[in-house]
Amino acid sequence: MAQSMKAAIFVEPGRIILGEKPIPDVGPLDALIRITTTTICGTDIHILKGEYKVAPGLTIGHEPVGIIEKLGSAVQGYSEGQRVIAGAITPSGHSNASLSGCGAQCGGPGGHGWKAAGGWRFGNTIDGAQAEYLLVPDAMANLAPVPDGLTDEQVLMCPDIMSTGFSGAESGKVKIGDMVAVFAQGPIGLCATAGARLMGASLIIAVESIPARAEIARAMGADHVVDFTKVDPVSEILKLTGGRGVDVSIEALGTQTTFEAGLRVLRPGGTLSSLGVYSEDLRIPVDAFAAGLGDNKIITTLCPGGKERMRRLIDTIGSGRVNTEPLVTHHFSLDDIETAYDLFAHQRDGVLKVAIKP
Amino acid sequence: MAQSMKAAIFVEPGRIILGEKPIPDVGPLDALIRITTTTICGTDIHILKGEYKVAPGLTIGHEPVGIIEKLGSAVQGYSEGQRVIAGAITPSGHSNASLSGCGAQCGGPGGHGWKAAGGWRFGNTIDGAQAEYLLVPDAMANLAPVPDGLTDEQVLMCPDIMSTGFSGAESGKVKIGDMVAVFAQGPIGLCATAGARLMGASLIIAVESIPARAEIARAMGADHVVDFTKVDPVSEILKLTGGRGVDVSIEALGTQTTFEAGLRVLRPGGTLSSLGVYSEDLRIPVDAFAAGLGDNKIITTLCPGGKERMRRLIDTIGSGRVNTEPLVTHHFSLDDIETAYDLFAHQRDGVLKVAIKP
Amino acid sequence: MAQSMKAAIFVEPGRIILGEKPIPDVGPLDALIRITTTTICGTDIHILKGEYKVAPGLTIGHEPVGIIEKLGSAVQGYSEGQRVIAGAITPSGHSNASLSGCGAQCGGPGGHGWKAAGGWRFGNTIDGAQAEYLLVPDAMANLAPVPDGLTDEQVLMCPDIMSTGFSGAESGKVKIGDMVAVFAQGPIGLCATAGARLMGASLIIAVESIPARAEIARAMGADHVVDFTKVDPVSEILKLTGGRGVDVSIEALGTQTTFEAGLRVLRPGGTLSSLGVYSEDLRIPVDAFAAGLGDNKIITTLCPGGKERMRRLIDTIGSGRVNTEPLVTHHFSLDDIETAYDLFAHQRDGVLKVAIKP
Amino acid sequence: MAQSMKAAIFVEPGRIILGEKPIPDVGPLDALIRITTTTICGTDIHILKGEYKVAPGLTIGHEPVGIIEKLGSAVQGYSEGQRVIAGAITPSGHSNASLSGCGAQCGGPGGHGWKAAGGWRFGNTIDGAQAEYLLVPDAMANLAPVPDGLTDEQVLMCPDIMSTGFSGAESGKVKIGDMVAVFAQGPIGLCATAGARLMGASLIIAVESIPARAEIARAMGADHVVDFTKVDPVSEILKLTGGRGVDVSIEALGTQTTFEAGLRVLRPGGTLSSLGVYSEDLRIPVDAFAAGLGDNKIITTLCPGGKERMRRLIDTIGSGRVNTEPLVTHHFSLDDIETAYDLFAHQRDGVLKVAIKP
Repeated sequence: MAQSMKAAIFVEPGRIILGEKPIPDVGPLDALIRITTTTICGTDIHILKGEYKVAPGLTIGHEPVGIIEKLGSAVQGYSEGQRVIAGAITPSGHSNASLSGCGAQCGGPGGHGWKAAGGWRFGNTIDGAQAEYLLVPDAMANLAPVPDGLTDEQVLMCPDIMSTGFSGAESGKVKIGDMVAVFAQGPIGLCATAGARLMGASLIIAVESIPARAEIARAMGADHVVDFTKVDPVSEILKLTGGRGVDVSIEALGTQTTFEAGLRVLRPGGTLSSLGVYSEDLRIPVDAFAAGLGDNKIITTLCPGGKERMRRLIDTIGSGRVNTEPLVTHHFSLDDIETAYDLFAHQRDGVLKVAIKP
Repeated sequence: MAQSMKAAIFVEPGRIILGEKPIPDVGPLDALIRITTTTICGTDIHILKGEYKVAPGLTIGHEPVGIIEKLGSAVQGYSEGQRVIAGAITPSGHSNASLSGCGAQCGGPGGHGWKAAGGWRFGNTIDGAQAEYLLVPDAMANLAPVPDGLTDEQVLMCPDIMSTGFSGAESGKVKIGDMVAVFAQGPIGLCATAGARLMGASLIIAVESIPARAEIARAMGADHVVDFTKVDPVSEILKLTGGRGVDVSIEALGTQTTFEAGLRVLRPGGTLSSLGVYSEDLRIPVDAFAAGLGDNKIITTLCPGGKERMRRLIDTIGSGRVNTEPLVTHHFSLDDIETAYDLFAHQRDGVLKVAIKP
Repeated sequence: MAQSMKAAIFVEPGRIILGEKPIPDVGPLDALIRITTTTICGTDIHILKGEYKVAPGLTIGHEPVGIIEKLGSAVQGYSEGQRVIAGAITPSGHSNASLSGCGAQCGGPGGHGWKAAGGWRFGNTIDGAQAEYLLVPDAMANLAPVPDGLTDEQVLMCPDIMSTGFSGAESGKVKIGDMVAVFAQGPIGLCATAGARLMGASLIIAVESIPARAEIARAMGADHVVDFTKVDPVSEILKLTGGRGVDVSIEALGTQTTFEAGLRVLRPGGTLSSLGVYSEDLRIPVDAFAAGLGDNKIITTLCPGGKERMRRLIDTIGSGRVNTEPLVTHHFSLDDIETAYDLFAHQRDGVLKVAIKP
Repeated sequence: MAQSMKAAIFVEPGRIILGEKPIPDVGPLDALIRITTTTICGTDIHILKGEYKVAPGLTIGHEPVGIIEKLGSAVQGYSEGQRVIAGAITPSGHSNASLSGCGAQCGGPGGHGWKAAGGWRFGNTIDGAQAEYLLVPDAMANLAPVPDGLTDEQVLMCPDIMSTGFSGAESGKVKIGDMVAVFAQGPIGLCATAGARLMGASLIIAVESIPARAEIARAMGADHVVDFTKVDPVSEILKLTGGRGVDVSIEALGTQTTFEAGLRVLRPGGTLSSLGVYSEDLRIPVDAFAAGLGDNKIITTLCPGGKERMRRLIDTIGSGRVNTEPLVTHHFSLDDIETAYDLFAHQRDGVLKVAIKP
């Protein structure tokens, strides 16, 4: 095994470069993964642009598929050479947050055990997955074996996109016979559409203007796709629901416009399930909120992680319930990751997600 | 029985007067109640001031205690002369909203069955309780018998204040061992404090500056009362929770300040349970919301109604679990209701709630 | 309109005959439905055999599709001539049970408001649907309009079979990625399979020996069908789940054997969702129950009713999520209902459900 | 520090003796606790009698209060000398069961991650707490600091009795205004009573014949104590609820009689929350179960563990919400543990719980 590896490193706003780093040492609870496939997330673009701050020198990326290279001395239940994924969010398992079923807000073992978004470590507070090797902390809580029958591309969406998208429907508590609206059909919104379909919604209205995405939205389960450049999505959704409004709206973009529209299309008592990462204050119009008297809920969810979550998503893929492969529109080698960032950041060539292979 | 009755009538913004009205006819599903005790709500003051619009000529009031005078032809299970209460919110029982467990958003039998705050009818869309007689619609779903051992004053808070206040804790899903903050200790906030205590919170921090209310807050279950005129309540609550924040914050005032503070004191993953009636747009500061990554929830609740809700609240009073009588600080006859409005609107003489008896 | 109608009447154990009855009077809360299609349920066979007792002279049947002939004087929101269904269970909407979201245990307006299975009235405590006309009580809570685009046969399973079957998955709280076993693939078990699929189970194992039912089970969403006449279903299900057991097992037959097997295939912490109508005491083997230490749940559910439930099921049909038409294997006119009973009671000719048309 | 320690060792059915054992080595994830106070559980008596099988040579006991003597090399967030408790059940935090919020059924890191009651390790599958020292596995998930202001005796019930008893109310989902019956008022039943009170039940009926226990039951929150030696508890409870039955019954003994009575006192739709450890098959009488049509639930719960659970219980004690000290009726030194076992096994001298101090 070599001593150093290639990694996509954040240098300063505007610059993520492919550089060299030492292969990390493996602590007792860790596992070292040799990455076979990874990808770039919209959040990585926020980092690239300096809109989300991380430490210069950090390796970026939080969506790993790979092979266990080395296990920490205290790690049991795995073997080297095993193919695994880990979620974008890596709960410790032992924090108060983890033990409360809220591992995404994991504060580690000390203090009061909670930290906002503390479970997001890869490419945020520790080195990430866009590299030849990745050190996975709390490996026993986070490594999920991948069955032989599934390709890397088939499970590549599990660590983040699919877990986040599905959680939009799950946190909204979609029930059989629900009407659901999903705002934006990027990779996360498409998975939210798939999640709403999986949970039994009988009417799914997606909002999207790009024809290729609208087409995938229908394949993922949308009954209608509303093009917001042609009609007002709020009035269109109200019309499609007979004036009633939807039981659950899912926000998958992170803007005031979609957040507010998500409120306005709710039936009384409905739930806005918010997945977006917001960069500005949000406004709740008093009329869209029934002055606080509408029994409405606004729920935010950070991508659920941990190996049991990954196991469930992998099984959902393996059983053919959902196929996320159409989301992988481009392939690159790690050597070309700077090109991949350029394509993805500018959303060129109809890109949805890229597969990157060291 | 007389042909006409006295009633507190909204005339125009600034004027609620005691006038005369015909005693209403009783439809097949209705019951006519002879009011023995009622009260004035903060919402009624919004109506008085013209901040919340109702039709001129409407009888105000939504908190009835009384005696069944006459039952509609299709009403079964009650007898005339029985002492009852009805909730401020009167779900039909048969709307789609009611059948979904969301009777406060009841849209009646036609259309799609949902209407924002549609379950609030008394003193809003139909004549209310500040009168000698009250017509209760959908009587079988709404009339709750009062046991002989309880006085009118003991159950007077059930129709609204106690149902609303408790729902702040219930919608927040307070659990044994939770830390809870309650913003404002007016009648609803005091009942929210009592509700959090009833549900097993192990730390309850109330925010209030009026000493008399602070004292009742402690009696209702607050462990700490933070005077926001002396300390910053957000930093004080964070200090009292060891930097962790509360599991649930309850907003019981209806302002941007308390709404925002309610967000800022949450631990990651915590819930803001909002009871206030807002008169302006709300702002969610992006930092108080962890950019949407904090697994936070914002839940609004309109006072739950219906006879089973009332039954539960009456039993809670009857068993001595909670005593809301300290909230009734003043007594008036219906003839003096204009004076009562004047006192209550100006919050004079330490008033919390007034008992009004025709 | 005629004065009398044909109806399938229970005379004594072993005899249900087609007789004449007066067309019922319509009370203020009722609606009279002219039946266009109805069916026979397994429960009706229990009644026929005397295993479930009803009053001699009662009209049998609880699965109506029809046209509103006449509305009670207090019924709003419908019009005569409208095509509707009503659920097998008709909650009043106004009982304490209904207001607690438990309308199947509806006790009516008086007393304490609860009665075991009290919501089941059609063909049990009042005249049922196997007739030319049906009186629907509490019509506003129970009549669900049927869209023009759907045939009677398409919605015929909604009142009971589909509502009951789906509730097996719903009460089991099936989640995305769950493993589920369904014991027996009669009409209810088939709908339980469909419900588990609709809610996102990633592995569904049905237990059934009849090839035709096994085939429909696969069409409804089963990944595996275990033939209990060829293998031990418990060990087969454990094998198919890698020794883990299922998250949820659904019992859809009503026998000790299936109940017990349902317990034995659960993973620790799993839920047995029981739909069967049991005619004998049940035994919980201490080892199948981990001595009470396994965090197991046993949940029973009676077919949910009410118009909002029907609305959801109709929408699920209308959106093409589920197709229950393959369950309707035979057609009869009401005049031939005795023949239909004979066929259905003896499960001849591969019968699953019969459509009966007056 | 010495090389060996005293420990209560299971030798064979009928014999638990005080013996000598080596002080255990501390692995990377472990912590070694110097026990300051522990106690004997009813389950330990089952072990003593051979009714529950453990390996000869095992140290018994699962209720530790102590001081951290030594931390494993990978353990962070604690310091040696800190006073802590650990729950009777020690979830790993990283098993699939733990990550599903079901740590009591924890299967460890390998295989499918589930094992019936696998979270119960102390005094069951590894050496327990009735010793001078205790090795706590997965220390970061399990050690809960004890505030200085609380005595050992005050927190001694947290690891098992209080966690188990409270879970009876929690798993029953007791709500404000619920009616609850608790069968048997031993230590766990008393804590179930306290839990039901903490969660807002408005009527709590305890079943117990021993006057001293009945008295503590009232102090813990029971409104009525039914002496089953004088009246039939089922008919008495039905009478006390006006014929309605309770929303939740809690079984805290582990016998057919109490299990069956727990079913018979339920209102339709009610929940039997079972805490007992059963040694024989259970029977569900078909009439007590409404033939499966009653929307009833039977829920079993194994004592929840983990440091966050302990934190909540400690806070509940610390805030004065509940006082479990009356449950500690006797004190012994570890040297006299054989005497303590004798007293406790024969329930002499009004014993509820014993405090044992090395």
